[in-house]
Amino acid sequence: MGDTSDGQSIAIIGLGLIGSSIGLALKRAAPRTRIVGLDRSPTSADTALRIGAVDRVTEHGSEAVQCSDVIIIATPIDTVVDVASAIIPYVRDDAAVTDVGGTKERIVRECEPLLGGRFVGGHPMAGSERSGPSAARPDMFRHAPWVLTPTPATQAWALDRITGLVATLGAQPSYISPAQHDRLQARLSALPHLLAFVLAAVGQQLDTNAAAHSGGSFRDATRVARSSPDVWAAILADNGSNVVDALIETEARLRSIREALNARNIDHVAELLREGHTPS
Amino acid sequence: MGDTSDGQSIAIIGLGLIGSSIGLALKRAAPRTRIVGLDRSPTSADTALRIGAVDRVTEHGSEAVQCSDVIIIATPIDTVVDVASAIIPYVRDDAAVTDVGGTKERIVRECEPLLGGRFVGGHPMAGSERSGPSAARPDMFRHAPWVLTPTPATQAWALDRITGLVATLGAQPSYISPAQHDRLQARLSALPHLLAFVLAAVGQQLDTNAAAHSGGSFRDATRVARSSPDVWAAILADNGSNVVDALIETEARLRSIREALNARNIDHVAELLREGHTPS
Repeated sequence: MGDTSDGQSIAIIGLGLIGSSIGLALKRAAPRTRIVGLDRSPTSADTALRIGAVDRVTEHGSEAVQCSDVIIIATPIDTVVDVASAIIPYVRDDAAVTDVGGTKERIVRECEPLLGGRFVGGHPMAGSERSGPSAARPDMFRHAPWVLTPTPATQAWALDRITGLVATLGAQPSYISPAQHDRLQARLSALPHLLAFVLAAVGQQLDTNAAAHSGGSFRDATRVARSSPDVWAAILADNGSNVVDALIETEARLRSIREALNARNIDHVAELLREGHTPS
Repeated sequence: MGDTSDGQSIAIIGLGLIGSSIGLALKRAAPRTRIVGLDRSPTSADTALRIGAVDRVTEHGSEAVQCSDVIIIATPIDTVVDVASAIIPYVRDDAAVTDVGGTKERIVRECEPLLGGRFVGGHPMAGSERSGPSAARPDMFRHAPWVLTPTPATQAWALDRITGLVATLGAQPSYISPAQHDRLQARLSALPHLLAFVLAAVGQQLDTNAAAHSGGSFRDATRVARSSPDVWAAILADNGSNVVDALIETEARLRSIREALNARNIDHVAELLREGHTPS
């Protein structure tokens, strides 16, 4: 499936880290692909063009969309539905539309009535604590999971086309429902990011030069605390009830360990740690 | 200072990951060093000898210690004081003794009366989720912080000698009090390990194949959940009151974020994340 996208016309709306990385990866894997990009920031658009993530850029959604076989909405999650709404008049009946938002339930629920079975929700489990097209990498998605969230309304040809695109990018497509995605996302993506910010705050509280006194565990666990707090606040809020559930469980587990420590019950502490022990 | 240890006689008691890595690093940086090792596990002793972490092994503490300029106790933290106690009769007056335990206040308080100013507490901020001599690496300590915790009772020559050893290993020595070390350790080492176990438990709860649906943030944040639950329960318990303090603060921060999410106050969520935001 490595070249099913070759020769297609692709529109990438939003040329940040993910959008530009998609462009770079596509140009490398399927060089005959024609890619048009659009970003409301002229600087981002210029950078994406300069690094070769897109063949050309436009300021007009109509122009980006009307000749495209696949339209990728790679804007922040709070703008995906607005973009979908704005492009409706120009999307061809036989074009597939996908997004890369970190939450899926609300986005799919609101985009599907707008675009019908042409829309396939997607979420690449890749990224970086950096942002913008200058941080883009063609190997960003290599071997990374890429969750697609079809529903009963999704057209089979649209799902096939987006699956082909994801495979071309080097990622590993998998299919789950939007609701299941969001439950997983809360625990496997939102929670590690949230804990990174909290751990960094707790560490800096005592030692503004925490890095000098810490080893790999602190460094690795706080790496994504370099991410944008605004971007992550929006993602957490969009998946609020699942994140709250994950937090309630996390807080309960921390409280149990704290109580076992207070009781000086080492065996019980070990038992509680063992529940999360990951065999090598 | 790269070769201040060259030609010295060194005893390493405990030939696990850290003890064997010290041996490998020393042999590389200071090849004339003579290293004798001791481990209660014959398998570990054999492996350490085979990979060249030590020049010879012995089963007798007296033999390991009596000709050594530096004695490194690299056993688990709950056995350091027992080892120190057992070797007292054989330690030369002009030999320096150090340990590599992840907590320092209790160990220093108990070892200093036994060994006097010859003892210097130490903690290399390096390691791995793997264990045993077969995971040892000569570059384990390269550029890693290595905290030494001298007290008013510490002899200057002993501190100099251990500092030289640490520098020879490629690490960066720094000096803080045992109490300050333990406060930092609770937040910069104990807490990230504890959170890794908890995050792994919360993730596995929902998805036994969590790795397939997760990206780099979950993978990095749970890496050290491969560590031994028993080893970490002992470290957490040994630094109990500081870890409890760190947990109380962590739980409070998580609760604040949860309440802001429940109130759908995105700006407040962003503000709380910003407290841990680490600029690139």
